[in-house]
Amino acid sequence: MHYILKIDCPDQKGLVHKVSGILYDFGLNIVENEEFVDHVNNHFFMRSEVVGELDRAEAFNKLSTSLPDNANIQLHEKRKKDIVVFATKEYHCIGDLLVRHHFGELKANILAIVSNHDHLRGFCDKFELPFYRISAEGMEREEHESKVLGVLDQYNPEFLVLAKYMRILTPKFTSHFRNRIINIHHSFLPAFIGAKPYLQAYSRGVKLIGATAHFVNDNLDEGPIITQDVIHTNHKSDAKMMAKAGRDVEKIVLSNALKLVFDDRVFVFNNKTIVL
Amino acid sequence: MHYILKIDCPDQKGLVHKVSGILYDFGLNIVENEEFVDHVNNHFFMRSEVVGELDRAEAFNKLSTSLPDNANIQLHEKRKKDIVVFATKEYHCIGDLLVRHHFGELKANILAIVSNHDHLRGFCDKFELPFYRISAEGMEREEHESKVLGVLDQYNPEFLVLAKYMRILTPKFTSHFRNRIINIHHSFLPAFIGAKPYLQAYSRGVKLIGATAHFVNDNLDEGPIITQDVIHTNHKSDAKMMAKAGRDVEKIVLSNALKLVFDDRVFVFNNKTIVL
Amino acid sequence: MHYILKIDCPDQKGLVHKVSGILYDFGLNIVENEEFVDHVNNHFFMRSEVVGELDRAEAFNKLSTSLPDNANIQLHEKRKKDIVVFATKEYHCIGDLLVRHHFGELKANILAIVSNHDHLRGFCDKFELPFYRISAEGMEREEHESKVLGVLDQYNPEFLVLAKYMRILTPKFTSHFRNRIINIHHSFLPAFIGAKPYLQAYSRGVKLIGATAHFVNDNLDEGPIITQDVIHTNHKSDAKMMAKAGRDVEKIVLSNALKLVFDDRVFVFNNKTIVL
Amino acid sequence: MHYILKIDCPDQKGLVHKVSGILYDFGLNIVENEEFVDHVNNHFFMRSEVVGELDRAEAFNKLSTSLPDNANIQLHEKRKKDIVVFATKEYHCIGDLLVRHHFGELKANILAIVSNHDHLRGFCDKFELPFYRISAEGMEREEHESKVLGVLDQYNPEFLVLAKYMRILTPKFTSHFRNRIINIHHSFLPAFIGAKPYLQAYSRGVKLIGATAHFVNDNLDEGPIITQDVIHTNHKSDAKMMAKAGRDVEKIVLSNALKLVFDDRVFVFNNKTIVL
Repeated sequence: MHYILKIDCPDQKGLVHKVSGILYDFGLNIVENEEFVDHVNNHFFMRSEVVGELDRAEAFNKLSTSLPDNANIQLHEKRKKDIVVFATKEYHCIGDLLVRHHFGELKANILAIVSNHDHLRGFCDKFELPFYRISAEGMEREEHESKVLGVLDQYNPEFLVLAKYMRILTPKFTSHFRNRIINIHHSFLPAFIGAKPYLQAYSRGVKLIGATAHFVNDNLDEGPIITQDVIHTNHKSDAKMMAKAGRDVEKIVLSNALKLVFDDRVFVFNNKTIVL
Repeated sequence: MHYILKIDCPDQKGLVHKVSGILYDFGLNIVENEEFVDHVNNHFFMRSEVVGELDRAEAFNKLSTSLPDNANIQLHEKRKKDIVVFATKEYHCIGDLLVRHHFGELKANILAIVSNHDHLRGFCDKFELPFYRISAEGMEREEHESKVLGVLDQYNPEFLVLAKYMRILTPKFTSHFRNRIINIHHSFLPAFIGAKPYLQAYSRGVKLIGATAHFVNDNLDEGPIITQDVIHTNHKSDAKMMAKAGRDVEKIVLSNALKLVFDDRVFVFNNKTIVL
Repeated sequence: MHYILKIDCPDQKGLVHKVSGILYDFGLNIVENEEFVDHVNNHFFMRSEVVGELDRAEAFNKLSTSLPDNANIQLHEKRKKDIVVFATKEYHCIGDLLVRHHFGELKANILAIVSNHDHLRGFCDKFELPFYRISAEGMEREEHESKVLGVLDQYNPEFLVLAKYMRILTPKFTSHFRNRIINIHHSFLPAFIGAKPYLQAYSRGVKLIGATAHFVNDNLDEGPIITQDVIHTNHKSDAKMMAKAGRDVEKIVLSNALKLVFDDRVFVFNNKTIVL
Repeated sequence: MHYILKIDCPDQKGLVHKVSGILYDFGLNIVENEEFVDHVNNHFFMRSEVVGELDRAEAFNKLSTSLPDNANIQLHEKRKKDIVVFATKEYHCIGDLLVRHHFGELKANILAIVSNHDHLRGFCDKFELPFYRISAEGMEREEHESKVLGVLDQYNPEFLVLAKYMRILTPKFTSHFRNRIINIHHSFLPAFIGAKPYLQAYSRGVKLIGATAHFVNDNLDEGPIITQDVIHTNHKSDAKMMAKAGRDVEKIVLSNALKLVFDDRVFVFNNKTIVL
């Protein structure tokens, strides 16, 4: 069996020794091991991939008793995550995810697709996945979100992936999925927060355009950043051309972020990510 | 002789034909020629490098009469620009410029160096350039700037290069040098405007840090962007480490911007740059 | 109507003036215009996008008579190109192309897909495009290629796109499509020519892996390079992980190259490309 | 005191536990800790930065007895390295190093500069470092190298940095400094091995030019790669312009490699580097 162990807790001497000792006593092979200490906040992070036989409850117990009381400990088998993908009308991110999913490259099972429009139904149907169009027209935000939650209840996803979902989520909604909603924002955050980032970028005359994958928690575009990248642009591009050119960097940044999250490499701490 | 011609004016049919005809009639060889039309604002930009013999006044006259009345026309010999460099305490940008200048790579003559501190005097003295320490201590901003202007009057520079000059310039000062002051800002503008961008970047948990070279006109950090670049960072870097890592991208971005400006490749229009 | 004009010929004075004069006489609006002179070989390149009404034959005639005898002149309407896509077993490049094609982003019509294996048939069938499996098993190279040519004859494609087609083409085959076959090679050419570039890259311990899109003419991997890019790698990646990581850069580089070629921006000269 | 511990040995279970136990028993604070297992070759690598009081001999002894017999163990105080810099005529790499050194940023003490030409003497003299011009004219390679070794004997450097030193070193010479000579090669190795890489790059029509920092052991340009980077180029650049444009990436790549090496982050194994 292949397990992933994630620990974070206030730093103290001997943590690596303790944890590696427990793993050794279980006779596990360490495939990969990374630690990081945030010296500003005096906090310890560790991620291990181990192979071997394990009584998970027993191991968890041993770790809990050796580590500080307020330690966060996750220990589970390495496996694909269950997700639901959200989109609106743009195809490039969801197209990329569906191709990867079809060929088993995405480290997740897409259980369903939710959209507030019907534009992508035909395309998604090719991949034989449940497609829920939940229109928001003439509806209060909460009413719409409760319909969405109704669909999600059937699937119990571990993560929601917003693949160009053009709606703002309420804190009430996001509170159900703390650090479990991943969004792709079409700018190099924190530049150009909010709507129409490419129009903002064009107006400012920037020479780079970017994309940011982040968790969505309370405030729009202010959640922990997972990964970012940029491409060069110049005076030849108007806002529309920038938006087109940005598609590729958006889809690759989102895909890279999902690899990290689904591989259990991402810790959230103080509204930032530690990626081991 | 080697000349550079820059034209910008409202677009109309036949502009390239007219200008190329005048260049042809003078028997000039076109070394490089680039045009751009901003279709949003219907404005035409052109830059030509030509080699040959030329009566500059006559050529300028012919161009003026053929082109629209409100055309901006520059025609001058290709030559190094006269500049004054400003710095405060940080060495990486000015160090890079002085080495390039020493070996004739910088397309400019550094006439003098101005600093509000004395930290860099010893280093600058190695390169035998006039170094003016003009302290701002206990002084109103205008008083300090008038002292600086006093020094600049001796040199009559075409461009001022702010190589990590840690003072805000008043609109009164910058009005003397419209589109002729080049600053390096230590972030990917418009993210992290103002002071301590690396601390802001660290606090936001970004995964890229950047640098922006721009002209300084009325408002701090809001002038036309010339060029930008970024490097990757991660959770391991605190604000101080980010600042150190950012030095290399800052000095290269500044140097790249200066190449473009001193090569007469940069047009400013609507607070943006067109780089031909 | 929207036209694209491409010219290349030995350089001489006045070429821009002549061509822009002809365009002006036809009353055309120049949307975009770029020229380049290769001063090493004294050769002139020009690409114009123009809008207006035009008697194509008449315009072509005027250009021919004004330009040097050996000038290459192309003048045609801006339109999508007809292409056939080749693949073997890997899905990432063809998957990306089929999604772009489905949503009208690819500047080409995919007429058919050819593969020497059947692995991708199910996926391609989703997009309702003719899929030809032409097995090469137990066949001489020429015999296989003549079968492929038989299929191509039905479609008369302007370009062939090798989207990870794992077979070497004979000069006899490629001679039918000079500068019209585009390949994606999974390395930064000319490093790691030939088979298993990722294994070669791993063995050499490189810190970057790349992808190169190029035309295929006589010799494998030695045709004119259209575009290239790289991503960072490190000691953690073995050859297989490098191959996986390389997929995204391969598909983006291929897609970028196709945009340039299908937009008529690429000239081939002396086994290199000029991209205007 | 601040120590750096580097270990590499055949992998076995429990290594992290053993080492971290020894560090814990000494009461050391772990500032940074990284491990890597090369699963292809079953080899373990570990680098720790620790702070505290230590009897170095005792600690080394404990580590030696706990680890496999053939383990490589280095344990020493964190401190600047003693180096000699080699150059020929080009100024950009040595210029960058001397500025960094002057301001204490280089994690090394430059003891002396060796050049086979006199071009850089004036510049180096500004920084008041011993400059040895050792001409190779009319001399056998071995004779020249023995003169160089004569100078090096006075300084006993830990590393030699070839900052654009345009001479090939014999295996006899390099054998004195195994994995202790760092070179900057002006291409993306293994593309364009040997002389005039920019001319080769221009002739091949590449769209990226690169730089590679590597250790120099037996064969020219075939030593372990430390780090690499590239910049974009295009048809506008001839070989000379590529060489100029490449200067910045060369100096930054060399500087980045030196940071890694002088920070004791680089292991050499199977002619590759592991960078922790």
